[in-house]
Amino acid sequence: MTAPSITRADGGITAPEGYRAAGVACGLKPSGLDVALVVADDVASAAGLFTTNLAVAAPVVVSRERLARSGGHARAIAVNSKCANACTGVDGMQAARAMAAATAEAVGCDPAHVLIASTGVIGMRLDTTKVSAGIAEAARRLSRDAHRAAAEAIMTTDISPKAAAVHVATPAGRFTIGGMVKGAGMIEPNLATMLGFLTTDAAVDPATLDRALREVARDTFNAITVDGEPSTNDTVLMLANGASRVAVDETTYPALLAGLYELCAGLAREIVRGGEGATKLVTVRVTGAASEEDARRAARLIANSPLVKTAINGGDPNWGRLVAVAGRAGVAFDQNRTLVRIGGITLYDGKTIFAEREHEAAAHLQGHEVEVAVDLGVGGAGAATMWTCDFSAEYVHINADYRT
Amino acid sequence: MTAPSITRADGGITAPEGYRAAGVACGLKPSGLDVALVVADDVASAAGLFTTNLAVAAPVVVSRERLARSGGHARAIAVNSKCANACTGVDGMQAARAMAAATAEAVGCDPAHVLIASTGVIGMRLDTTKVSAGIAEAARRLSRDAHRAAAEAIMTTDISPKAAAVHVATPAGRFTIGGMVKGAGMIEPNLATMLGFLTTDAAVDPATLDRALREVARDTFNAITVDGEPSTNDTVLMLANGASRVAVDETTYPALLAGLYELCAGLAREIVRGGEGATKLVTVRVTGAASEEDARRAARLIANSPLVKTAINGGDPNWGRLVAVAGRAGVAFDQNRTLVRIGGITLYDGKTIFAEREHEAAAHLQGHEVEVAVDLGVGGAGAATMWTCDFSAEYVHINADYRT
Repeated sequence: MTAPSITRADGGITAPEGYRAAGVACGLKPSGLDVALVVADDVASAAGLFTTNLAVAAPVVVSRERLARSGGHARAIAVNSKCANACTGVDGMQAARAMAAATAEAVGCDPAHVLIASTGVIGMRLDTTKVSAGIAEAARRLSRDAHRAAAEAIMTTDISPKAAAVHVATPAGRFTIGGMVKGAGMIEPNLATMLGFLTTDAAVDPATLDRALREVARDTFNAITVDGEPSTNDTVLMLANGASRVAVDETTYPALLAGLYELCAGLAREIVRGGEGATKLVTVRVTGAASEEDARRAARLIANSPLVKTAINGGDPNWGRLVAVAGRAGVAFDQNRTLVRIGGITLYDGKTIFAEREHEAAAHLQGHEVEVAVDLGVGGAGAATMWTCDFSAEYVHINADYRT
Repeated sequence: MTAPSITRADGGITAPEGYRAAGVACGLKPSGLDVALVVADDVASAAGLFTTNLAVAAPVVVSRERLARSGGHARAIAVNSKCANACTGVDGMQAARAMAAATAEAVGCDPAHVLIASTGVIGMRLDTTKVSAGIAEAARRLSRDAHRAAAEAIMTTDISPKAAAVHVATPAGRFTIGGMVKGAGMIEPNLATMLGFLTTDAAVDPATLDRALREVARDTFNAITVDGEPSTNDTVLMLANGASRVAVDETTYPALLAGLYELCAGLAREIVRGGEGATKLVTVRVTGAASEEDARRAARLIANSPLVKTAINGGDPNWGRLVAVAGRAGVAFDQNRTLVRIGGITLYDGKTIFAEREHEAAAHLQGHEVEVAVDLGVGGAGAATMWTCDFSAEYVHINADYRT
């Protein structure tokens, strides 16, 4: 197969053919949009990834059930922000089912073809009267132009809506993939961590869609962290309606993967860039590990280390903290052969401290996109990349006052 | 055995008979004391616990070697602050050996009977000329009264020196245990985490001393965390010189344990209370776990969760975050039977949210000593307690600017 041509497309979740969306205010938030609706014109293939947290929110339970029952088919995705409907017991399950029922009624579809998601405060009862009214209103306002309002309606402490789309040109024809995400706090690998909604007008059977979503998420949504806290609500849902008449088969599957990777990597980095209080996008690379699993583990610990993230926030090339975290990762590590680079500048090689280069590394850390790299020194081929953000006093302010 | 009578004693590391100490300034810090020396009049039994980090500082390597070579005997402990002598390669090992040699010379003892420790910035070369001069000066100033200066000299970002002592009365006679610690950042279980120095005038053989130190550390120094970061330098050393003529045997061992626990629990809580930017001492209790290991794991994750710690900083009884962290702990957990209490007030029992009680819990969180408790809901006997501190914007400021 020749490499697919991937180009940026206008619009977000409605960029592919055959989707409409809306974002409305139903009064869950004191002000601002808080209900989003995405609807495919016809029943689409559907796939989902959900939080690994054992404390799992009611909407996650409901969406998992629906996907299983429908064999991977859906028409509508309804989302509310402000209230996570998590830790809400039997009442919460009833509220989530009511939210799904209201969506089926408003859209005029089979209740089995409705997926839902919620985000916001844990342990707050979901006001189903407000949400149902919001969904009805959203159904009346569905349009291809409202993708931005939908992306706004799923925000919590996000600073700005995050959406994008790509065209994928293949010998079999062109299809489009669109998406919107929300992030901010509680961002950690294993999905657990975010809401993401993706659409494509390629024709993909449910099993293939599920496989593509898992493959791409491993290196994108699962390779980011803000604070190491998988949430109770994390959900990524994807619909494929076939409106482009381009069928994904063995030949075009790599093009789907490539396009989806391009889109999701960009959205994942946007989530990190928009982490609570974040001032920098940090790429963490770990090499020389005994295995890829070891590399991932060390990269994740570094990406979540308060001492590393505060040093980066302060623009301090404190490579010693990187060594200290790598040393406690519980993976094979040789302190006499480890190597630390910041912005490509080697500051320590297990024997020598290159103190005279620290000012260059410090200059690199002044940028908005920075990179720290640790070689574990055991000579293995294991390597991994994680994206994270720095840790600022603003993060503390946001999270100390979140519910007030 | 009747319960031993434990009473608080005046003084710190020199409260037991037969020890002298000093704290001096050798110029590693721009100002302030930076070298501490503790000397037993005669060779004492010695035991040590060291960091579990694979990136291990040179002084840790040297002290481990000496303890092994001497069969658990020592006379002198030399400590410097400001420079951790970690990640300093072959030069660092030479500097650590030079520091030990300077101590043996200044004290006039067998080099095998010298233990050392360092704390401060990682990857900074240790100025052995300054440290050796400081140790010589400290040896000239050794006295029983200088325990406070010694406790000051081991501080890095600690706000105040941390030292205490207890008398332990047993039918066989009275002995005394004294100690000093430093903490602040990089505080995490598995020792890894702090410097602590303990002395007693009880007569304890090295093997028994080692056993007592490990038993007590598990529930004290290893049950605290500030930021989940075991350091490269963490060390706890204990000397027992027998000057009280009270021998610890089968009968008096429980008294040694009780006295040591009393002393170390107090010092451990002081470390947490003095965590970087800390405003509250937080006790985390986990019950209803399938095993003690599960309970410890969940308690540690809660105690290290930025979302939990920032909520406590803000006085927000955000019990949902406690559930979310327990749910991601990777241990058996039943979200329908979990139970969350803040300050003894049940806010959630897996079915019902007691929103009307939140103001009471919020009032509790205004205090300087607060407690959060999670029952994992699986009905097991596993339970654990961890001490931690809240997470403030001040922590970020301290760690963003640590080296500047």
